[in-house]
Amino acid sequence: MSYDQSAVRAVLVKAKEEERSSLTSAEAKQIAAAYEIATPAEGLATSVDNAVGMANEIGFPVVLKIASADILHKTDAGGVITDIEDVDAVRAAYTAILDNAKEYNSDASIDGVQVQAQIQDGLEVIVGATTDPVFGKLVAFGLGGTLVEVLQDITFRLAPAESADAHAMLNDISGSKILDGVRGQAGVDRTALARTIEHISHLVNDFPEISELDLNPVFASADGAVAADVRVLLNSDAVPERHQHTPDEILASMKRIMEPSAVAVIGASAEDGKIGNSVMRNLIDGGYEGDLYPVHPKADQILGHQCYPSIVDIPGNVDIAIFCIPAQFVAGVIAECGQKRVSGAILIPSGFAEIGEHELQEEIVRVAREAKVRLMGPNIYGFYHTHKNLCATFCTPYNEKGSVALSSQSGGVGMAIIGFSRSAKMGVSAIVGLGNKSDIDEDDLLTYFEQDPNTSVIAMHVEDLKDGRAFASVAKRVSRTKPIVVLKAGRTSLGAKAANSHTGALAGDDRVYDAVLRQSGVIRAKTLNDMLEFARGLAVLPTPKGENVLILTGAGGSGVLLSDACVDNDLSLMAMPADLDAAFREFIPPFGAAGNPVDITGGEPPTTYRATIDLALRDERIHSLVLGYWHTIITPPMVFAELLGEAVANARAEGNDKPVVCSLVGDVEIEQAAEYLMERNILAYPYTAEKPVAVLGAKYRWARTAGLI
Amino acid sequence: MSYDQSAVRAVLVKAKEEERSSLTSAEAKQIAAAYEIATPAEGLATSVDNAVGMANEIGFPVVLKIASADILHKTDAGGVITDIEDVDAVRAAYTAILDNAKEYNSDASIDGVQVQAQIQDGLEVIVGATTDPVFGKLVAFGLGGTLVEVLQDITFRLAPAESADAHAMLNDISGSKILDGVRGQAGVDRTALARTIEHISHLVNDFPEISELDLNPVFASADGAVAADVRVLLNSDAVPERHQHTPDEILASMKRIMEPSAVAVIGASAEDGKIGNSVMRNLIDGGYEGDLYPVHPKADQILGHQCYPSIVDIPGNVDIAIFCIPAQFVAGVIAECGQKRVSGAILIPSGFAEIGEHELQEEIVRVAREAKVRLMGPNIYGFYHTHKNLCATFCTPYNEKGSVALSSQSGGVGMAIIGFSRSAKMGVSAIVGLGNKSDIDEDDLLTYFEQDPNTSVIAMHVEDLKDGRAFASVAKRVSRTKPIVVLKAGRTSLGAKAANSHTGALAGDDRVYDAVLRQSGVIRAKTLNDMLEFARGLAVLPTPKGENVLILTGAGGSGVLLSDACVDNDLSLMAMPADLDAAFREFIPPFGAAGNPVDITGGEPPTTYRATIDLALRDERIHSLVLGYWHTIITPPMVFAELLGEAVANARAEGNDKPVVCSLVGDVEIEQAAEYLMERNILAYPYTAEKPVAVLGAKYRWARTAGLI
Repeated sequence: MSYDQSAVRAVLVKAKEEERSSLTSAEAKQIAAAYEIATPAEGLATSVDNAVGMANEIGFPVVLKIASADILHKTDAGGVITDIEDVDAVRAAYTAILDNAKEYNSDASIDGVQVQAQIQDGLEVIVGATTDPVFGKLVAFGLGGTLVEVLQDITFRLAPAESADAHAMLNDISGSKILDGVRGQAGVDRTALARTIEHISHLVNDFPEISELDLNPVFASADGAVAADVRVLLNSDAVPERHQHTPDEILASMKRIMEPSAVAVIGASAEDGKIGNSVMRNLIDGGYEGDLYPVHPKADQILGHQCYPSIVDIPGNVDIAIFCIPAQFVAGVIAECGQKRVSGAILIPSGFAEIGEHELQEEIVRVAREAKVRLMGPNIYGFYHTHKNLCATFCTPYNEKGSVALSSQSGGVGMAIIGFSRSAKMGVSAIVGLGNKSDIDEDDLLTYFEQDPNTSVIAMHVEDLKDGRAFASVAKRVSRTKPIVVLKAGRTSLGAKAANSHTGALAGDDRVYDAVLRQSGVIRAKTLNDMLEFARGLAVLPTPKGENVLILTGAGGSGVLLSDACVDNDLSLMAMPADLDAAFREFIPPFGAAGNPVDITGGEPPTTYRATIDLALRDERIHSLVLGYWHTIITPPMVFAELLGEAVANARAEGNDKPVVCSLVGDVEIEQAAEYLMERNILAYPYTAEKPVAVLGAKYRWARTAGLI
Repeated sequence: MSYDQSAVRAVLVKAKEEERSSLTSAEAKQIAAAYEIATPAEGLATSVDNAVGMANEIGFPVVLKIASADILHKTDAGGVITDIEDVDAVRAAYTAILDNAKEYNSDASIDGVQVQAQIQDGLEVIVGATTDPVFGKLVAFGLGGTLVEVLQDITFRLAPAESADAHAMLNDISGSKILDGVRGQAGVDRTALARTIEHISHLVNDFPEISELDLNPVFASADGAVAADVRVLLNSDAVPERHQHTPDEILASMKRIMEPSAVAVIGASAEDGKIGNSVMRNLIDGGYEGDLYPVHPKADQILGHQCYPSIVDIPGNVDIAIFCIPAQFVAGVIAECGQKRVSGAILIPSGFAEIGEHELQEEIVRVAREAKVRLMGPNIYGFYHTHKNLCATFCTPYNEKGSVALSSQSGGVGMAIIGFSRSAKMGVSAIVGLGNKSDIDEDDLLTYFEQDPNTSVIAMHVEDLKDGRAFASVAKRVSRTKPIVVLKAGRTSLGAKAANSHTGALAGDDRVYDAVLRQSGVIRAKTLNDMLEFARGLAVLPTPKGENVLILTGAGGSGVLLSDACVDNDLSLMAMPADLDAAFREFIPPFGAAGNPVDITGGEPPTTYRATIDLALRDERIHSLVLGYWHTIITPPMVFAELLGEAVANARAEGNDKPVVCSLVGDVEIEQAAEYLMERNILAYPYTAEKPVAVLGAKYRWARTAGLI
């Protein structure tokens, strides 16, 4: 694409010189044209005869519109007349528009009247751009007309948007099917529409002073996409640059922080009940094998470890310093950490921004930046790195090794992570508290976990992103190899937003988060429990090799609920090939149902479960297996659990490792069966049909985004 | 409302005589007018001059449309020309339409050309009616235009719809706000629109041979609602009448069935592993205190009870007979049950409709109707009535008494109900398997549970309703006093539907179920687990006295998640009055947040929790309390649980019984705290913020429907 950047620059420079915060309609169309946006033929008439001449040249019908930088809402001002079919009507409209404009705003400086070809056909859509405080430049697409405001059927992407993003946006909106034509209408030219989105996204990316932009309406038809009106708002206030580390810097410091060889505890204590005591105990009890240096002004030894009056007195190297001292002393010690070339300060203390002490927090950030020390927190429980036996926290120790890395912004959620993990025996690689996120945030963690061989799944509780654009960029890269699950809290807080464009007004916080997280390949969890279950399940499930899901059940009722859940989770129930159908029928009673779900019926012995499961595990056309077990006397829960465990183990040994999830219905014995299966890395849940399918659905969402199926 | 029924009857009789399956446009408008539907001025022209005369009389602009019973899709046939502004255009349009019609269908019998006033203004909506196989006559409302087909933003109600239903429909659609006018447009006359819906619903109810009807579009404006086009399809096939018992008959037999004084077990057995043995054991072990009669052709005694060769040989009265014999012997014994005046046959045997043996099932229904015996099943696990110590089932016994009544159509779901109940220590009044529902179905159970003093909440797993209209009518009545939770399985099965009208095509199974269940006051659960949790929770929560919900939390992070959940569940976070705010501030640290959520912060001792909880429980402006507990050393889980238990017990003793739900985050000790609280009828869930709020939301949904708040 070749954009005429200098043409745009000229228009913007002029507007800036005139200290305007918007462009005239003509200017707006000029810059749109420079970025290959089609607009209708038009001209600016300054007299009635002039208007008539232009109308004749353009061809009827035409639209006349007031041209004035002082009148933004032209329709409200009576400044738009459509369906002008002949010369007489042009004359009448010209006069009427000027009269209306004067009445509306007698001070308005009027450039003339625009004469514009009236677009006859096409679906009204809106393409726009806005500037989000978290994500920066966003491009938007939605259906046009008044309905868009009511239904808010609009979607967003970070600008610039790639062609694939633009095409995905067309499918994102609920009314997407209308683009393909309904009731015999021809579909619109999707390529032209997607290009319009791309062009706009490049325009606002190239010229950040364009704060908001609407193409509203764009008439989309089989012949292309024409923007009937272009509206551009300007804001040249520079966005403050955020301090950025290079990826190499991030990785170097994060590796030292997460896998430290030496840890100092600032404010270590021998006294029970003190945070500095809990941290020491957790490090020792957790089995941390690196060097451990308690720092205390007076103590000689704490819990058997040599104590130092200050961090600078420690003889050896120190990678992290865990702070267990009051807020007012933190800045001073961070400076000392700098002298000691400590990589990270783990700031457990509260008393900063979370209670309104913003200046104190800004101070520690300033000091840390000078000292070249990264900060985790403040106001956190600390962090865990199980593969280093490291419990750098005042909470209870947790050391169940596994491949799930989790982070939380809130201490409460962090404790829920630890409790759930322990209860569910979920193996984790790390649990990290981010708290106030004065420095280290999700981007840094993602960069570290990306290369951490112990981590296969990342789950994050997020309340806000300090730099959404940086997060999106790292997440997009990392999610190609490791699933990222995000619980975005605060999604229903509809912060009032000052916006002067339609696009801006429609950019509700959560809608933007949702779109950008999707664009970044992130799996969004709706609830805390979903985040935890997805984290556990994604680490266990192998990546499916294709979309074919088979439901195999002993209970017809479960089959129906599991089918519902598959549809809810965008899973494809495999169409059963005739030979496979016949193969299943070999094993099931004549009144059982093959097809999909395969219903082996409730009265069957273990051999029937085993034979049909083996068949499903071995047939390569089946990519994932959803099991619905029904507790019977003939096949009791633990008998089922053992046969399934063996079947899956055998299949794995044969190289047939496909996702298997299991819904168990029955009396309380199924809880033991679920536990038995979970311990063997087979996802099984009692009293629910929907949860196992939701977890499988999350795995599919990731596999599709990562381009693996 | 005074409808001209005889005018409608005349039109329908004529159409029937002519063996037509649709009405002409003129006829359709005639019957609409007879039911007070406004339609535009119009006439049927049979010559060009005739058309010109009419157009002059009606006033320009006009629309011309082909009038032919053989051309249903007028637009497709080129049979509609709009925006006709003058006499010349009328002449041209008249000729063009006739030409087009002949070309489209040269055999079509043409009545002439309709000349119609063109409605200039208004929002296009659709009002329609269809005939649903489950629910019968339904009335529909949605936004018009092509978008309605794409977005399917349409809602349904049973016909006839009351005024309140019709008004509720206007709010049901996603685009509802557009009715109030956007961008300065005037809102539409909601009363006129609601009346249109009501009129149509009465029309199809009064004349069942109207199978489908579209008013499409209806132009709704501030001045009223005008139906520009009316389309009516006819189908005089009589719907087979379903056998109906009177409510008194139902209650009389259901009381004997659910609370029997004497039970016979057909096919009782002394042999371990037989169903007839399990049933006997469950009855005995469950502690059933009525008379128990095993029936066996040869045995003398079974498990200590005198045996009889057939049911007719039993000396005393028998209320129910539990069948444990093969399918082919069932009909014969039902006939004997009739002789013995048994009220209900509990048909555990399978081998009927569920395996394709429809005739066998029809036979037992026929025999039972003659014998005046009600049938439960076949193909069921039986049923439980805890307050009678009755385990009439071959499954494991369950006798935890409580006030939740549950039913399931599937045995698998039934087992999940039993397992969940036992695991969660949920007290139940009854658990009933409905299986093939050859006779007794949800209506009968609702009628019984309505008057059962032991039942306060009813939860039902439903795969299909045999008679949706009967269910809706009973549910509407019962839900006024007792919450009904329904898990409708099979909701995503999009059965292909033959329909010739827009309304019919849009009546997807699940959308109709959803709307009718709502109209009936039913709380719909989306998942099996939701059904179970709602059932447990609704029985425990008192009815809130108003909409004001307060969140009180020790973890800011939980507060955010709980707020999200409140919004998701349509709960209103109370705006905090200044005096109450000040009262809370008395107890919490200066950096804590009052307002709503009240964030007491994480470091607080038990006294702070207790003081703020007491305040929230006592202040009458707060109607419900959502607690977010965060596990700390200062206030450990069991300390919190005990203080909350005491606070609630005191408040209840003082008469301040308001709903309290609790989210617990922390290490595994919170599981014990949750259990402690659950045992004290305080809903508390570990590792989730969303579940307690969802249950509270269900209670509110019910309280609103029942008109209690």
